[in-house]
Amino acid sequence: MTAAVTPTKRSLDLGPAVELVSKEEGHRQPLAPEFVSAEDFSPLEVAYDFGRVRREDIEAGPRNIWRYKKLLPVPSNVEEIPNTEPGCTRLVRADRLAKALGLKRLWVKDDTGNPTHSFKDRVVAVALAAAREFGFDTLACPSTGNLANAVAAAAARAGWQSVVLIPSSLERAKILTTAVYDGNLIAVDGNYDDVNRLATQLAAENETWAFVNVNVRPYYSEGSKTLGYEVAEQLGWRLPEQIVVPIASGSQLTKVDKGFRELGTLGLVEETPYKVFGAQATGCSPVSTAFRNGYDVVQPVKPDTIARSLAIGNPADGPYVLDVVNRTGGAIEDVSDEEVVEGIRLLARTEGIFTETAGGVTVATTKKLIETGKLDPEAETVLLITGDGLKTLDAVEGRIGPKATVPPNADAVRQALQS
Amino acid sequence: MTAAVTPTKRSLDLGPAVELVSKEEGHRQPLAPEFVSAEDFSPLEVAYDFGRVRREDIEAGPRNIWRYKKLLPVPSNVEEIPNTEPGCTRLVRADRLAKALGLKRLWVKDDTGNPTHSFKDRVVAVALAAAREFGFDTLACPSTGNLANAVAAAAARAGWQSVVLIPSSLERAKILTTAVYDGNLIAVDGNYDDVNRLATQLAAENETWAFVNVNVRPYYSEGSKTLGYEVAEQLGWRLPEQIVVPIASGSQLTKVDKGFRELGTLGLVEETPYKVFGAQATGCSPVSTAFRNGYDVVQPVKPDTIARSLAIGNPADGPYVLDVVNRTGGAIEDVSDEEVVEGIRLLARTEGIFTETAGGVTVATTKKLIETGKLDPEAETVLLITGDGLKTLDAVEGRIGPKATVPPNADAVRQALQS
Repeated sequence: MTAAVTPTKRSLDLGPAVELVSKEEGHRQPLAPEFVSAEDFSPLEVAYDFGRVRREDIEAGPRNIWRYKKLLPVPSNVEEIPNTEPGCTRLVRADRLAKALGLKRLWVKDDTGNPTHSFKDRVVAVALAAAREFGFDTLACPSTGNLANAVAAAAARAGWQSVVLIPSSLERAKILTTAVYDGNLIAVDGNYDDVNRLATQLAAENETWAFVNVNVRPYYSEGSKTLGYEVAEQLGWRLPEQIVVPIASGSQLTKVDKGFRELGTLGLVEETPYKVFGAQATGCSPVSTAFRNGYDVVQPVKPDTIARSLAIGNPADGPYVLDVVNRTGGAIEDVSDEEVVEGIRLLARTEGIFTETAGGVTVATTKKLIETGKLDPEAETVLLITGDGLKTLDAVEGRIGPKATVPPNADAVRQALQS
Repeated sequence: MTAAVTPTKRSLDLGPAVELVSKEEGHRQPLAPEFVSAEDFSPLEVAYDFGRVRREDIEAGPRNIWRYKKLLPVPSNVEEIPNTEPGCTRLVRADRLAKALGLKRLWVKDDTGNPTHSFKDRVVAVALAAAREFGFDTLACPSTGNLANAVAAAAARAGWQSVVLIPSSLERAKILTTAVYDGNLIAVDGNYDDVNRLATQLAAENETWAFVNVNVRPYYSEGSKTLGYEVAEQLGWRLPEQIVVPIASGSQLTKVDKGFRELGTLGLVEETPYKVFGAQATGCSPVSTAFRNGYDVVQPVKPDTIARSLAIGNPADGPYVLDVVNRTGGAIEDVSDEEVVEGIRLLARTEGIFTETAGGVTVATTKKLIETGKLDPEAETVLLITGDGLKTLDAVEGRIGPKATVPPNADAVRQALQS
């Protein structure tokens, strides 16, 4: 746990956020850049006093996640401070994918439209807004991909320093997409676990560094609620019957559920029943395995899957994912790397959306959930597609290519098309 | 010119579009999939009868380009037909870039948020909508990059066949990003000129193929007007004083101007003066050269620049670009490949936006226009950033990287940051 930084003169403004609460035993403590309860050692979560929130206020807000600022731990003037303006990504009616899967009514939430093309822009934007209130001046993270891009970009736009730690073995393309923002990108000779440990240590030692997914994690993770808010608003202020969410740490799934419940409690949507489904790659499926076995704890695994953005072997929110899925009557499944690639290709072929491996996991798992009778093909379903295929080209490399290579004449083209 | 396809039973519905008009002598002819006037051999352009269009109607529309459907050559129900739903991308206030450039008030229109991350999704969506009305069933193009992605994705989502022709020497990554949509991607043994010639021949021979940038080009190019509409709406229904637009064929620049003028004529914005500036890479700068020399025609060049998406040596709309720039009191400049890379890095470092080489051209040219006194640093300026850096990683390869590579301990990280 990081010592709280002394706020500057003005008092702390985190909007409707009032306290942190421990997830296990509900111990309450003041808002601070801390992430684990000293009482019960469980994760801390933001608690709110929302007051009255009306649809009209939200609809009159900006076309980004700050339209929901009255539901987030961010300052009241958050939209005026330079930020990457993530959110309000497309929710597309996916009739062709629905047909291919045998679903009646399907929507795809396409979060590749975010500034750095993954949902991480949402959580990082909230983390940065909260970190600024706490008096931090540097945005940091350990990462191998989407998070590194999002942190480096958000810091650049805000005029903050950034410190992004990556394993030195990372592919050149992934290094470039973070290095271009010109923050402090540090390659560490070690694996991702080494980098993660180093981040936790540095977070404890550097009072002005906000590690988005460490010391300001309770604020950061609230950013995922906006996926739930947007789905509901884009459906015309109502909840879908089923939603399929990929599981890495599990935070996103629990926060989408939290967002749905808040909307219901606040009277912004009718409290209709919904089922939350989780998707994992078999090569890193600790939560799926726990669900299958009926456990309420999650046994860590050593990840081995092409879905690297989901490859968290010891997911912090695993038990809470199980809670949500069990409470709502959903299910969790996992799919092979081969199925992941098929999922990527199916979504691209039917809806023109090119997703990264995590999206392939979501699509393929949906297919499996239908085949095993766990997902109701008659019920309206939403898939969360949270990252971009341009970032995981290696997953499809060697599997797809031109239909034909021909000499430059029209007959050759026609023949190629007829073959 | 392609023979018009016989429309199906219902009559042609292209919304407010009423005729095609030749750009040189104003010859009028019925709406059809034709792109060159048989009278004066100049390009054909869509003419409209808009009737009354109100801001409220637009604001009540969908959050994509179809909110402007009453200003486009598309059917009245266009938003109901599956499409990639491009547009409504972010217009971000760019104070840090403004400061770096010495500008008072600057906005960046970040079109990387489109479905396949370039403005081509806009023009392809309009082309597809019009092509459907004309009875075509296959969407096609010659391309080496953004257009190939956009056509393949749009066709996939619409459930259409696609035929995308590329030079067989294209880099593997660019092949993958089109091949994933599973259309007919045909690699042609030849250079881009060969591929282009082949496309024109095939467009003439295949009555059911809509080559977006050949036989349905007049409709396709109208899609770029939406960039102008969005900028004006996002500024609060007013025109900027200066706008900088990259020039490839020159179509985008002329259509942004057309969009601005239409908004003024329709009373949707006040008709305040604005200047349009053009940006080229020196390695392919025929329009900039013509402007510098005061010519009203453009001499073709052989392109040699890293800004490949702008590398059109014989730009079809070059003369019309000169007209717009001269009429509005703007200017055109060009920049070296070295400056292009600096432009990419400057935008990333100051605003967290990673653009492709074309965006680097726009930023670097803006800098040059300020330095040469052609762009007024006191006047409000908009830059069009029309494509994504993830697609041109080779441009920054070898120039950027980690700040340091260190062993996995905190001291080493701290030392690296102090050095």
